[in-house]
Amino acid sequence: MTWAPPGKVYVIVDTDSLHGRTARDVLRAVLRGGASLVQYRAKDLSTREMVEEARALVLEARRSSVPLLINDRIDVALAVGADGAHVGQDDMPVDLARRMLGPRAILGVSAPARDLAMRAARDGASYVACGPMFSSPTKPGISPIGPEAIQSIKRAANLPVCAIGGITLANAQRVAEAGADLLAVVSAVMAAPDPEAATRELRTLVEEL
Amino acid sequence: MTWAPPGKVYVIVDTDSLHGRTARDVLRAVLRGGASLVQYRAKDLSTREMVEEARALVLEARRSSVPLLINDRIDVALAVGADGAHVGQDDMPVDLARRMLGPRAILGVSAPARDLAMRAARDGASYVACGPMFSSPTKPGISPIGPEAIQSIKRAANLPVCAIGGITLANAQRVAEAGADLLAVVSAVMAAPDPEAATRELRTLVEEL
Repeated sequence: MTWAPPGKVYVIVDTDSLHGRTARDVLRAVLRGGASLVQYRAKDLSTREMVEEARALVLEARRSSVPLLINDRIDVALAVGADGAHVGQDDMPVDLARRMLGPRAILGVSAPARDLAMRAARDGASYVACGPMFSSPTKPGISPIGPEAIQSIKRAANLPVCAIGGITLANAQRVAEAGADLLAVVSAVMAAPDPEAATRELRTLVEEL
Repeated sequence: MTWAPPGKVYVIVDTDSLHGRTARDVLRAVLRGGASLVQYRAKDLSTREMVEEARALVLEARRSSVPLLINDRIDVALAVGADGAHVGQDDMPVDLARRMLGPRAILGVSAPARDLAMRAARDGASYVACGPMFSSPTKPGISPIGPEAIQSIKRAANLPVCAIGGITLANAQRVAEAGADLLAVVSAVMAAPDPEAATRELRTLVEEL
């Protein structure tokens, strides 16, 4: 049973990139702007703080019928009834995450190479994320794999592919044209003066294709 | 259904206090020394590293029929099939932790005051931990509550009480005499040149009472 993304615009609300705003305000803005999928990433908060904030965000997202995933923390995802989680290669192993979350949750997996993507698919991923597409301010020092990599990872995993890393309003169309099913952005929206407008613009660029 | 601790010596294997040893070697030593309960605390590892290490520790503890709890991370506890978890006031809320772990898991809760202890009991704690007993190198700047606090917290929670914070071979007997059902130690064992001998000595001091 393959998961079909509800649209391409995937905004990661990262507590490290709030620029003085609250996670809740940013989430509301990106929901108004038309994000199709959202993720809550909070690497430096206590579990208690994460649970309290994530609980409020889940309610906001649900009001807009947009699925919300929790980065890394399966316990937090379960505690707040999120729609799923996203795990990287340093996070919970995919098979264990899938077992804990159950068969219906959305489980994203960072898998920037063909072998990792195949393994993630076998272990229960709903989509695989590959990147960085371009050199990215949030992941300095990692060589970009480019939009050219999307098709080969898609064939390997036979799952929706999420492009991530350095995606901006200037290059989003190129990434969508290369076959990305989801375009995940942090800075392009979080660092924008108006996250709602940035989300809306991104949506216009990629959903028309 | 009240949980009965299998003995009083509770050793916390903290990855911040390994003094160049591996967590697995320290755990083996404290199991040989006769620890009754053990906890794995790893605040600075990735989820993946925690899961891998905790999985090996669970096997070691099981071989000695000693329950092993995971600090804070309910997801890791579930992933590795630990016997339970220990949560503090900044960690997963107790009622949610209990729901995720199920009714048979051991769930410890840090509750250094009567009201917190009562609430923890109501929300599903198996034991409450109170401290610091004495000024402690791992929690500088927090005023000790002393062994005198144990009885009132025990009456409030009506659960086994775990004393923690600054417990050493020199003061352990006094803490046990004050009514502690468990004595949790980090430094007293982890910083000892011979963790096995330190555990054994602690056991001799407190289990005879």
